[in-house]
Amino acid sequence: MVDKGWADDSLPSLLSNYAHQLSAIPTKAKTSPQTSPRDLIRFTVGNVDPDTLPTKELTRAAEYVLSQGQDVTLNYGPAQGNVELRDLIAQRQTEEQHVTLSAEDISLTSGTTQSLHNICQTFLNPGDVVVAEVPAWRGFFRASQASGAEVVSLPLDQHGPSIDILARNIKELLTQGKHPKLLYTIPTYRNPTGTTMSPERREALLELAARHRILIIEDDAYSALYFDSAPPPSLFSLSGGEGVLRLGTFSKTIATGLRVGWIEGKREYIRATVAMRLDNGTSPFVSRMISEFLKNGSFDVHVKRARAVYKAKWDTLRQVLSISGVNTIASSYPEGGFFTWLTFPEGLQAKDILQHAEEEGVAAAPGTSSYYEDRYKEEGEHSIRLCFSNVPLASVEEGAHRLLRAIDRTKK
Amino acid sequence: MVDKGWADDSLPSLLSNYAHQLSAIPTKAKTSPQTSPRDLIRFTVGNVDPDTLPTKELTRAAEYVLSQGQDVTLNYGPAQGNVELRDLIAQRQTEEQHVTLSAEDISLTSGTTQSLHNICQTFLNPGDVVVAEVPAWRGFFRASQASGAEVVSLPLDQHGPSIDILARNIKELLTQGKHPKLLYTIPTYRNPTGTTMSPERREALLELAARHRILIIEDDAYSALYFDSAPPPSLFSLSGGEGVLRLGTFSKTIATGLRVGWIEGKREYIRATVAMRLDNGTSPFVSRMISEFLKNGSFDVHVKRARAVYKAKWDTLRQVLSISGVNTIASSYPEGGFFTWLTFPEGLQAKDILQHAEEEGVAAAPGTSSYYEDRYKEEGEHSIRLCFSNVPLASVEEGAHRLLRAIDRTKK
Repeated sequence: MVDKGWADDSLPSLLSNYAHQLSAIPTKAKTSPQTSPRDLIRFTVGNVDPDTLPTKELTRAAEYVLSQGQDVTLNYGPAQGNVELRDLIAQRQTEEQHVTLSAEDISLTSGTTQSLHNICQTFLNPGDVVVAEVPAWRGFFRASQASGAEVVSLPLDQHGPSIDILARNIKELLTQGKHPKLLYTIPTYRNPTGTTMSPERREALLELAARHRILIIEDDAYSALYFDSAPPPSLFSLSGGEGVLRLGTFSKTIATGLRVGWIEGKREYIRATVAMRLDNGTSPFVSRMISEFLKNGSFDVHVKRARAVYKAKWDTLRQVLSISGVNTIASSYPEGGFFTWLTFPEGLQAKDILQHAEEEGVAAAPGTSSYYEDRYKEEGEHSIRLCFSNVPLASVEEGAHRLLRAIDRTKK
Repeated sequence: MVDKGWADDSLPSLLSNYAHQLSAIPTKAKTSPQTSPRDLIRFTVGNVDPDTLPTKELTRAAEYVLSQGQDVTLNYGPAQGNVELRDLIAQRQTEEQHVTLSAEDISLTSGTTQSLHNICQTFLNPGDVVVAEVPAWRGFFRASQASGAEVVSLPLDQHGPSIDILARNIKELLTQGKHPKLLYTIPTYRNPTGTTMSPERREALLELAARHRILIIEDDAYSALYFDSAPPPSLFSLSGGEGVLRLGTFSKTIATGLRVGWIEGKREYIRATVAMRLDNGTSPFVSRMISEFLKNGSFDVHVKRARAVYKAKWDTLRQVLSISGVNTIASSYPEGGFFTWLTFPEGLQAKDILQHAEEEGVAAAPGTSSYYEDRYKEEGEHSIRLCFSNVPLASVEEGAHRLLRAIDRTKK
């Protein structure tokens, strides 16, 4: 009998355990503009403000790096990333974080998603335990699942992650012989709630994590985008860089489509993550463009402008939500970043509101997509995330009114 | 007693098993131009010819994509990659490979290194067995090690991988209850030998792999860069895309610093690899630039020019090596690509030749770095790889003469 070789059912038997696991996790739905109502106002995707995209300045940067030092721009670079950009980031972070950093303490990545994947591959074995804030963006959840780790949820109160619950969880895990290795947090203008961890809570979290040698992964994508004044010092800054890997990115300050972010931390930790990079490093071409964008002053001008734009959007959104009389809404009040989070009374289901919202021509994300463990998931059933960054300023007010109509209709 | 938290020895206990494993593997040494003799001629790194870098055309492409469709250029794209570039690749491959492909059958990556990492994560569990040609570029070896797989070497003869040895290895593995999952090959102008698998050997390999359901990973980075006439049909083409994932890249045809490559294969296989992407997809900005470079005709003009340049370099190298009278050298005769491979008689050690070569002002790669298993490694001790792509044409002759002097000195 002749073996026919490849049959239609060949694929599943070839897949790795994690491929089976990850395929089952829904990835972020990328709604296609073509198939949606033309005037749908989307408080969904965390892209930057479309009107602030610095295309002219990026063009100038591209022209420059293709005319000067082409060998560095267009050839393989080190796995750790272009040294000039790492130098510039280190200089800026030394000033901003009050921690002395050099290029050796920075590794470039193609954004925070890759930073998390890289970190999880470097530190996690199947069966390891990690702790993650909830509600939170799912990036860390996916990356730690891909390493076969078990994720323990860490609930938030108004000041940040609950230290009492964390202490209790750690104790319980230790009695089971499990030592949590990593703790994931977005302390500043967090995705999805927009809220910020208080300075006191930061200190308490650092103290508890250090005592148990849990490495903190500080996702700091939004801290440059404050509305009025700079946020509290980062966990990285407060700990002098000890026991913390801080993740930065140009996705939210310049554009998500560039795909350049970084990890900063103690040199030997950075070296360990670089050894696990299996992509020959982040694009030298794009890295050099960003270097030039920083060096010629475009970045600072641009970020200042972006802060004002996101503040104006939030002010508009807040005014409509406040004067609406829909006072059953508990809303978070971000002081920077892209997000706010609305929580409704028990009787109102987020999925019903979002269905009415779509009919009214406005979209937002359901709270449930920011939770992982079933035992917490139902908290998300009465919440939605509004991401206002990518909605043109002129549409924010109309979008908010549509949402309020949807809420009203759901109440009836 | 107070727990002091982070101590100097914290890192090793945090690292994953694979981090321990990969940290031990030396990564490709990136020699720094500053610290080497100013006039060292480097037959080492697989960057493209410096004089052919199409900087003017890339600048034009960057200007275009930053002025048109900025929302696609600068925002998050799908994890599978920019659809326009996937469409263009599919159209070209449909013509070249005689297999009907659409954008759904292509996934963009940041180059072949990431393609291999992505594939290994999708298909390999710890303890799985994979087969890889030797001598070969180490990219697949590192990626499969990171997935905890065992790599079985597949030796080459002058026509390609030895089918007899492969059949024997498979049989032996099966009796041990091990089923090899993946087989890695660079059939055309392979790195490091420059040689090409014969059409007959391609058919035999496909037949044997299909019979045992071993998925072939065809690394086809160099096939567009033929000297005189196109190479034999790819394994992907011969099998109608069945049981083969073919890896393409713009690294060798345009520039290594862009970081854009792709995987092509059966749609469901591509979907499985995309589900394992944890980096939010390859840069939409660079992908759109390459689209524009393809669409406006720059690519075809450029590749034609590049072929002539690499042929001229090889011709020069070959002439010097042939007329030198050093007839103890067995040299491979590439018909395209970047590499040739010199094997010396038993008495001559590659490491001695390379040491003399450095003194003469020329560098090449030792053969041993293209082997993994100890039982084959000694084959590499009498060989060196010459990569002529990145040496300016004007320096190739002088570089070859320096190498011959080094060989002469080693013989004495």
